[in-house]
Amino acid sequence: MKPPIVFWFDPLSPFAFIGSVEIERVAARHGRRVDWRPVLIGVTVLKVMGMRPLRDYPLKGPYLDRDLRRQAAYFDVPLRKHGLAGVNSLAACRAFLWIKRDDAALAKRFAQAIFARLWRRGEDIGSIDAVVAEAGALGVDAGALRPALAGDDLKQALQASVAEAMSQGVFGVPSFVADGELFWGNDHLWMLEHWLEHGDFARK
Amino acid sequence: MKPPIVFWFDPLSPFAFIGSVEIERVAARHGRRVDWRPVLIGVTVLKVMGMRPLRDYPLKGPYLDRDLRRQAAYFDVPLRKHGLAGVNSLAACRAFLWIKRDDAALAKRFAQAIFARLWRRGEDIGSIDAVVAEAGALGVDAGALRPALAGDDLKQALQASVAEAMSQGVFGVPSFVADGELFWGNDHLWMLEHWLEHGDFARK
Repeated sequence: MKPPIVFWFDPLSPFAFIGSVEIERVAARHGRRVDWRPVLIGVTVLKVMGMRPLRDYPLKGPYLDRDLRRQAAYFDVPLRKHGLAGVNSLAACRAFLWIKRDDAALAKRFAQAIFARLWRRGEDIGSIDAVVAEAGALGVDAGALRPALAGDDLKQALQASVAEAMSQGVFGVPSFVADGELFWGNDHLWMLEHWLEHGDFARK
Repeated sequence: MKPPIVFWFDPLSPFAFIGSVEIERVAARHGRRVDWRPVLIGVTVLKVMGMRPLRDYPLKGPYLDRDLRRQAAYFDVPLRKHGLAGVNSLAACRAFLWIKRDDAALAKRFAQAIFARLWRRGEDIGSIDAVVAEAGALGVDAGALRPALAGDDLKQALQASVAEAMSQGVFGVPSFVADGELFWGNDHLWMLEHWLEHGDFARK
């Protein structure tokens, strides 16, 4: 069994939403599984880097909008730009880790539901109620999840996940790690596929 | 005759060096010409954006090093990382514009010589002497170029080129503009090729 492709995601990113769909197709083409792992870009990684969110920079923001539309078309992942302010992915990421302890496949379906809620239906994912509702709809024990979300245990687990991301060199999402190689962004998926197929980077 | 692909470059960028080689291959495959145009990223565009050079950011810098090696391998553009500090592309960009007024093909060969000087031989390109020497070796009238480099005329021409780049949305190099669509980075060349071939972004 080949090692999985690690997929670093933050539900806040529409690019990560597109990547979450496409990486499963890429993995299937190459006989790999995908190990989904959450990272908080806005509130942690960017602080370490001393950056603001990329969309807030002049010139770069409009380009990202343009590129998002192109990527959504190419990868065939319809999405809507929500008008919500201050969306927070903390509870969703903690819930993901809690579910993953028992069932990685269910955790993935939960993350997909969170992505769909924000980027297909344009509804907030920040509240505990929203997170518990999405989990409960998938059969997760909502009565156990809700108190766990308030505990130190999950807080530390998510901090550890973010630290692990940075130790792998992750600074944005989506990021993909395959056999020690890090690829940032859906625009690098062609290079990831080349790496999966050939194990080097020379054009064939 | 189809309109040219605009190639925005700054000789300081090793990614632009790789792009300068590959974009000519891409254009040839699609029956296009390439219109080379200089832009100063470090001293102008990044100031407008309120950013530092990307390689100076934690996490991002090491990734760019890694990606540079991968791109150099894939696009088959050998380069050496020079250890020079404070390299300046102002004179080279001004000389490029001066040569281009009479002979765009010669200006392109001059820019290629400047790229090769810095990224193949690892020699500084910042001094007037270096710029005039590279131009002279290609048959440019060095006796006329040298005083022109000190004049207001070329200073303003380069400022206009930078302003034009930003008006097209350029915030980094290499950038490519084809039929109104802007693509940043060699990692987007696959998307540029898709656009050139199909005129849209839907995967076929």
